Amino acid sequence: MIVGVLGGGQLGRMLAMAGQRLGVRCRFLDPDPHAPAGEIGELIVADYSNEGAIARLREGAAITTCEFENVPASAASLLERTGRFFPGAGALAAAQERLAEKSLFAELNIPTPRFAPIDGPEDVEPAVRRVGLPAVLKTRRLGYDGKGQLVLREPEALASAWRALGSVPLIAEELVEFEREVSLIAVRSASGETAFYPLIENLHQRGILRLSRAPAPDTPPGSGPALQQLAQDYARRVLDRLSYVGVLTIEFFQSSGAALKANEMACRVHNSGHWTIEGAECSQFENHLRAILGWPLGATGALGPSAMVNIIGAPPILPEVLRVPGAAVHLYGKSPRAGRKLGHITLRAPDEPTLSARTERVRAIVAAAEAGGGVG
Amino acid sequence: MIVGVLGGGQLGRMLAMAGQRLGVRCRFLDPDPHAPAGEIGELIVADYSNEGAIARLREGAAITTCEFENVPASAASLLERTGRFFPGAGALAAAQERLAEKSLFAELNIPTPRFAPIDGPEDVEPAVRRVGLPAVLKTRRLGYDGKGQLVLREPEALASAWRALGSVPLIAEELVEFEREVSLIAVRSASGETAFYPLIENLHQRGILRLSRAPAPDTPPGSGPALQQLAQDYARRVLDRLSYVGVLTIEFFQSSGAALKANEMACRVHNSGHWTIEGAECSQFENHLRAILGWPLGATGALGPSAMVNIIGAPPILPEVLRVPGAAVHLYGKSPRAGRKLGHITLRAPDEPTLSARTERVRAIVAAAEAGGGVG
Repeated sequence: MIVGVLGGGQLGRMLAMAGQRLGVRCRFLDPDPHAPAGEIGELIVADYSNEGAIARLREGAAITTCEFENVPASAASLLERTGRFFPGAGALAAAQERLAEKSLFAELNIPTPRFAPIDGPEDVEPAVRRVGLPAVLKTRRLGYDGKGQLVLREPEALASAWRALGSVPLIAEELVEFEREVSLIAVRSASGETAFYPLIENLHQRGILRLSRAPAPDTPPGSGPALQQLAQDYARRVLDRLSYVGVLTIEFFQSSGAALKANEMACRVHNSGHWTIEGAECSQFENHLRAILGWPLGATGALGPSAMVNIIGAPPILPEVLRVPGAAVHLYGKSPRAGRKLGHITLRAPDEPTLSARTERVRAIVAAAEAGGGVG
Repeated sequence: MIVGVLGGGQLGRMLAMAGQRLGVRCRFLDPDPHAPAGEIGELIVADYSNEGAIARLREGAAITTCEFENVPASAASLLERTGRFFPGAGALAAAQERLAEKSLFAELNIPTPRFAPIDGPEDVEPAVRRVGLPAVLKTRRLGYDGKGQLVLREPEALASAWRALGSVPLIAEELVEFEREVSLIAVRSASGETAFYPLIENLHQRGILRLSRAPAPDTPPGSGPALQQLAQDYARRVLDRLSYVGVLTIEFFQSSGAALKANEMACRVHNSGHWTIEGAECSQFENHLRAILGWPLGATGALGPSAMVNIIGAPPILPEVLRVPGAAVHLYGKSPRAGRKLGHITLRAPDEPTLSARTERVRAIVAAAEAGGGVG
């Protein structure tokens, strides 16, 4: 059975690995001839606008899907017109544009940071007045890993903001004071079955995810089950509204009192869910495949406490990491470059204190490699 | 990093999968153009006696290894002469010939069934007299999955036994009355580090492994830790004697009173260890790679009770299996054929009764497929 995938990054690579043992072969379309998924599955090297390439991608494929968010609308709608494409062009469109995304959350009564559209330089001042200072200005499209964002703290900074972000449509958002960031990975199958992984606690630095812990530690103490329920309730509204099929990730800001504000969503498997490969009954990658193929979903429970440390910029010394008990190393086959996600390490432990100790050990090894610029 | 592997069966396939996320690429040599590992790694299709093919296998490889037992001595010694080949020609030679294997066990004071060599038809009667009736006659080489064996229960059967087994050198063995079969998967790294997985309980039917449970249930009650220690002690003697590097599996008969008799050993990852992919901290496949590459070994502890059900002859209806909680399906990409191992299913559960219930459910699904000859 063949599944066609738009995008051939590490998410596609891990999707293909999950498929290997289920008799599912992933085929990828990516303009990069060195796309990481090409080591695992067939890779068609072409632009996403290449209709011939898209035809080859779906030739004989049971289904098509995507592994990155910014799929061009033309590619998504072509795949949807000519076969089954999940999560669907509509879901992608809602997630690709920050104003549409926030408006969807608001419409579904899912709390979000205050927001206001900016269509031209003259909108900056009134929009920021609506959301208040400090504010974050974001390009509505193509932002990821903290790119295309600007934090405004002083009124003087407003004048230059429009041009600093490239003179494109923006959204102004309230800069939320949050206790932590959490994400929920949800999955809905073609047959309508849904499942939710435990909430994940995420730590970003310089706009890049560094560390995830799952299940998210109970903060404040005792709030865990209610918080999980709240996040699932919000996610279910989105799944239902979009008739979503596949894995959907929603990132939330959590403020004091266990309140959640939806920050953004990703219509795909997610970096914060990589721990599910070793740490959950069934991984997000396998569940995405099960969902789009209409198979029964796998159990989403955690096997115990897990953590995930991203490898950024330079690979760590492998034997040093392998010496840490419970460490599972995932390298994506990418060449080192500052700020680039090259792999991740999942850690498991029988209890939280052991997990924390192992995690700190691995973070130190990974940080040393990043600081040193790599050991090759 | 490239690892060259003699043999491209499902064991090689799973070895390659374990390597994918560690930056290790496996390259295979197998005479079968449809060898299952060829879907995952580069496959050189040639006979094992083809020296040019062996040269290509080890070209640029950090190390070479094997994934089946009956590696021709010529191939093993060529690889050993021209580079690093683990577990080594000596270890393979000891495991390939049943008389050498049993003699090694005896020499290391590891209990075995009584045995005696049969070099010609005239040896059958005295050999069987030494081991007693009922006896098992086995070809000394190339037996697997119950092939090349004959059980003698009556003296009259002796006369025809030599020719029935092909007029080749045999070994006569006492037919042990055992309570159960267990296996121990041991691993020793190039740096001398050793590790042992929990004992596994195995159920064979018609000479083929059907079911493994790990850690092996405590039989008799309370004997678990002592039995584990005993098996590890025996395995360590073999590892040390052979200066073994890689995964080594020893199969034992367990009789009443928690006594173990070594039946045979396999110088490779083993079917009874497939549960380690989901059920142990680090799988046998990853640990074999770590061992031969001289990396620190991964933890061998079980995450909880696991079971493994082999898929024989015909594939089960996939969604039926996926509906069983905690079931991880592994298909090897082989075409169905009676008696052929096509895949396996690992089951995990929070406790033994739940595991047993899930296992029985999966065994019924798998048995129905085998009886029906497959659903494709």
